Amino acid sequence: MRKITTEDLKALDKVSRLNLVNSVTGYKSANLIGSISKEGKPNLAIFSSVTHLGSDPALLGFIIRPATVPRDTYKNIVETGYFTVNHVTEYLIQRAHQTSANYNEEVSEFEETQIASEYLEGILQPFVKESPVRLLCKYLNEYPIEENGCIHIIASIEEIYFENEMLNNDYWLQLEKGNVVSINGLDGYCLPKLLDRFEYARPNGMTKSMLKNGS
Amino acid sequence: MRKITTEDLKALDKVSRLNLVNSVTGYKSANLIGSISKEGKPNLAIFSSVTHLGSDPALLGFIIRPATVPRDTYKNIVETGYFTVNHVTEYLIQRAHQTSANYNEEVSEFEETQIASEYLEGILQPFVKESPVRLLCKYLNEYPIEENGCIHIIASIEEIYFENEMLNNDYWLQLEKGNVVSINGLDGYCLPKLLDRFEYARPNGMTKSMLKNGS
Repeated sequence: MRKITTEDLKALDKVSRLNLVNSVTGYKSANLIGSISKEGKPNLAIFSSVTHLGSDPALLGFIIRPATVPRDTYKNIVETGYFTVNHVTEYLIQRAHQTSANYNEEVSEFEETQIASEYLEGILQPFVKESPVRLLCKYLNEYPIEENGCIHIIASIEEIYFENEMLNNDYWLQLEKGNVVSINGLDGYCLPKLLDRFEYARPNGMTKSMLKNGS
Repeated sequence: MRKITTEDLKALDKVSRLNLVNSVTGYKSANLIGSISKEGKPNLAIFSSVTHLGSDPALLGFIIRPATVPRDTYKNIVETGYFTVNHVTEYLIQRAHQTSANYNEEVSEFEETQIASEYLEGILQPFVKESPVRLLCKYLNEYPIEENGCIHIIASIEEIYFENEMLNNDYWLQLEKGNVVSINGLDGYCLPKLLDRFEYARPNGMTKSMLKNGS
């Protein structure tokens, strides 16, 4: 096995360090966050840090880097109190990655990247029309991460939209059926295929497959 | 599209709510966190919330639920100051899921689930021998999430170990080459396959594939 220490990391050029450290925590979620300014200008930006925080109440968190690109997203979320989370599919990956470009405030990423928006009745914030899973989220709180100046945004999940064929009987949503992708590092987009599901694990014996007999 | 509101979520039984809300944020990382008590008792538990926080310094975060199973992990991390993060592969999924069982404090998850540990010179905390990517992490801080009582643990990445064939020239680690999995919901394990990598996105034009000509 190859070993890299903090000293080795410091000696790497910036791009190599970014590539390696962004890869070593494992696969990441791929979401487009839709928001709108109080003047009505829509914004769309890709995030790979959206994480489940709890189910009752339904909460998620994600990380904002104030010094880098998606700062419009942060301003819009705080201004209007809401945002949308839209899953990236295999057909969206190139356009979704393009939303990370440092566009000036006047342009809409929806137009520049040719990702179609969809507005639902009574909701100001734009959704991504192609996304098979979409959430309306409400900003609740933020925790500044002192160690590197990031902000951890906490939000409640207010409404969930999804393609009905993705839903199993037990309300497990099969992301594979929506062609949802995951992210490897900064710029690698991957398509996961389901291997197995396992029963709730108990101390005696080994958890069983929910899909295969005798596994 | 199917629509689920917060009222619909409240009306669901607990397992259905857990299944749905755990699926709607997208694919999650699959990591086994190795730790040891100050008395020398090793512990291993699966986590799906490990998230990249920054590259310089190299930081990650993950979520602990004090009321649920992996509380030994938390105690050990605070007591000894260090822990390991080990990627789950397709061959590990059943045993990795079994680490989520509510074992009593006296047993070692390594033994109960037949996951081989590996101890490296000068490091007290156990690694997972089969994992193609392993990190030694140092506990830095914790942020209680007031909204649901979770704790967001912040740690620095001190040492990175990986199979050398996973490393590309630009230090992007290709997780696919290590058969690393991602998690869908509470109990679905998926194997991602690389679709594409894209160049750094700039405002003019569309980002290009790093792998394909003319994409």
